[in-house]
Amino acid sequence: MKTAYLDNSATTRLDPRVQEVILKTFSDVYGNPSSLHGPGRAARRTVDNARERIAGLLGVDEKEILFTSGATEANNLVFQGLPENRGKHIVTTRVEHPSVSEVCSSLEKHGWEITRLPVNREGRVQPADLLSAVRSDTALVSVMWANNEVGTIQPLDEIAGKVQVPLHSDAAQALGKTPVSLEGMDFLTFSGHKLHGPKGIGGLFHRKGTHLKPLLLGGGQEFEKRGGTENVALIAGFAEAMDLSVRNQSENRRKMADARDKLAGCLRGLPDVSILGAESNGLPNILNACFDGADAEALVLALDAEGVHVSSGSACSSLSTEPSPVLLAMGFSIEEAKTSLRFSVAADTAAEEIEHAMEVIPRIVKRLRGYSEKKRNE
Amino acid sequence: MKTAYLDNSATTRLDPRVQEVILKTFSDVYGNPSSLHGPGRAARRTVDNARERIAGLLGVDEKEILFTSGATEANNLVFQGLPENRGKHIVTTRVEHPSVSEVCSSLEKHGWEITRLPVNREGRVQPADLLSAVRSDTALVSVMWANNEVGTIQPLDEIAGKVQVPLHSDAAQALGKTPVSLEGMDFLTFSGHKLHGPKGIGGLFHRKGTHLKPLLLGGGQEFEKRGGTENVALIAGFAEAMDLSVRNQSENRRKMADARDKLAGCLRGLPDVSILGAESNGLPNILNACFDGADAEALVLALDAEGVHVSSGSACSSLSTEPSPVLLAMGFSIEEAKTSLRFSVAADTAAEEIEHAMEVIPRIVKRLRGYSEKKRNE
Repeated sequence: MKTAYLDNSATTRLDPRVQEVILKTFSDVYGNPSSLHGPGRAARRTVDNARERIAGLLGVDEKEILFTSGATEANNLVFQGLPENRGKHIVTTRVEHPSVSEVCSSLEKHGWEITRLPVNREGRVQPADLLSAVRSDTALVSVMWANNEVGTIQPLDEIAGKVQVPLHSDAAQALGKTPVSLEGMDFLTFSGHKLHGPKGIGGLFHRKGTHLKPLLLGGGQEFEKRGGTENVALIAGFAEAMDLSVRNQSENRRKMADARDKLAGCLRGLPDVSILGAESNGLPNILNACFDGADAEALVLALDAEGVHVSSGSACSSLSTEPSPVLLAMGFSIEEAKTSLRFSVAADTAAEEIEHAMEVIPRIVKRLRGYSEKKRNE
Repeated sequence: MKTAYLDNSATTRLDPRVQEVILKTFSDVYGNPSSLHGPGRAARRTVDNARERIAGLLGVDEKEILFTSGATEANNLVFQGLPENRGKHIVTTRVEHPSVSEVCSSLEKHGWEITRLPVNREGRVQPADLLSAVRSDTALVSVMWANNEVGTIQPLDEIAGKVQVPLHSDAAQALGKTPVSLEGMDFLTFSGHKLHGPKGIGGLFHRKGTHLKPLLLGGGQEFEKRGGTENVALIAGFAEAMDLSVRNQSENRRKMADARDKLAGCLRGLPDVSILGAESNGLPNILNACFDGADAEALVLALDAEGVHVSSGSACSSLSTEPSPVLLAMGFSIEEAKTSLRFSVAADTAAEEIEHAMEVIPRIVKRLRGYSEKKRNE
């Protein structure tokens, strides 16, 4: 059966070159990086090299890069480790990933005050709102670099360096898809499996001198900031994935935008379909659209039966039947949100995948709308 | 050059069968387990199967098994998630792994009281001490199943079911090397890379109904107990590793004990070497010995130069020059502790490795002692 994997914002296929690095590391490097002997030192070198490589790609010092089990842990590390003496106020937005929004809700129960800024119809927060929300007791400003459901890029470039408190951004969706500058940033979260690296590995940039309390206590790994034996092979693979992703960014962006634009053209040809998110200032790989009169979950399953894999909402919440909080924050109604599909392409999305999707989507949308119409008339 | 990897308590070599499972998962299963579509459901099935397999091996319900990034995270999850309303007292021992002892020290700073029970000269805590240390405000009793430096097995079997508070054990070193029963246990920590699985994956058994607050908040994965996209490939590999390890335990134990006994025989033939730990009730793979008059770190490096890879103290603290807290708790002096080496074998330790070690060790010990002697006389 023909297939089209169009859910690359949920996770990407592992790049064969990354897989090769992981395999080679599994085979050749088995020591514990904390061991003094040869196999231990070899493992330490593997981790050090990966760290230097990622630091180099981001233009920061290698001591400013920590490895974690993923973006979720990196976000939790930043938020759960905030100093309490600086004040217990956080500025963030209404469209953050659950690993930020859930930890904020948890902090709220422990006496923290969270300012969740609204976004416009495109999902974008206003820089002026961000700057004016900062108070003398603000401990952190956290704004995702780009949204995982609609792809909207947030105005980090307009506020970095201007807020006088630590500034964090979850760039899990952004890295490799849009330029990410660490100038003026204090914390940046990144993820392996969003850029054709493995699941289970991620990282955090933390600027030297910025307070960071470890979340996982233990053997003092990662500069005393994250205990636990290092995930050596996946760390090596992660560095390879980030290298490929950042170095080939321009070319990849073009490929992604081409695929997305083809899909968008197809959707625009359908009646009662509206495309959400930033028209011009969005990620090149995400396309979110509402299919008036169709149920998104039913669409996902019907498309899946024809080999077209897309998502309603983000993967992190797609097993829930709640409407997307992101779309609600953008001003869409519950009914509208429940008709929204996210299509996300990647640089490795084949032309045949897009063609297959373009053949299947109009047919399925028409069929499902027919059912809904029929149901309503019964 | 001939080599002998005798540091399997720090980490083990990945079993080729485990590597194959990981590889196959990387190639075939790329979806996000939270996605509704086919590739997502395939990933979900992979995680479910691994969970059922591990639960089956341990004789518990699959909902009682959580995957974490390793034993350190599992230990932190238990301790950092303790309810405060039950009282803020913990009973543990003086010989726990840093991922337990460090989190205890951190809790102490937040108003918790920690009772750290002493151990005897073999490293064993007394069951009566454990039972009598429990108070009405005790929230947790935590005792490692077997010690990572000397291999001593703790009397969990004598206290399980008898303490009226949640009982936790870090069994990272024990699983696959000694029978581990979950009867009467509420929490059990396990690790992938200690049993020829990959680094970066571990798990926690938590008995149904026992309070457990998530440490990583996010998309509600792992039954709302651990946010973050599942490490699908390593989870599959971990289940394979645990299966191989638990199923072949009797045979593996015999292999390990044979290798350890040969090494012990060699060490007993050397002057002024004393073997530490439990004579009869220890893990079959660990041998710890003091080399009177020799510096352990110098020994590690000199042995390493001849391809014999051992450790002084545990890997988690071997980059520090502090004497082992475990040996101090067992009643050894700082001087004695600084002469201690840990040799740890595995079922895949080859006869040639043991022969090589037995050829090298006497020579190196003699040479280093000569240097020390000479130095003292200068």
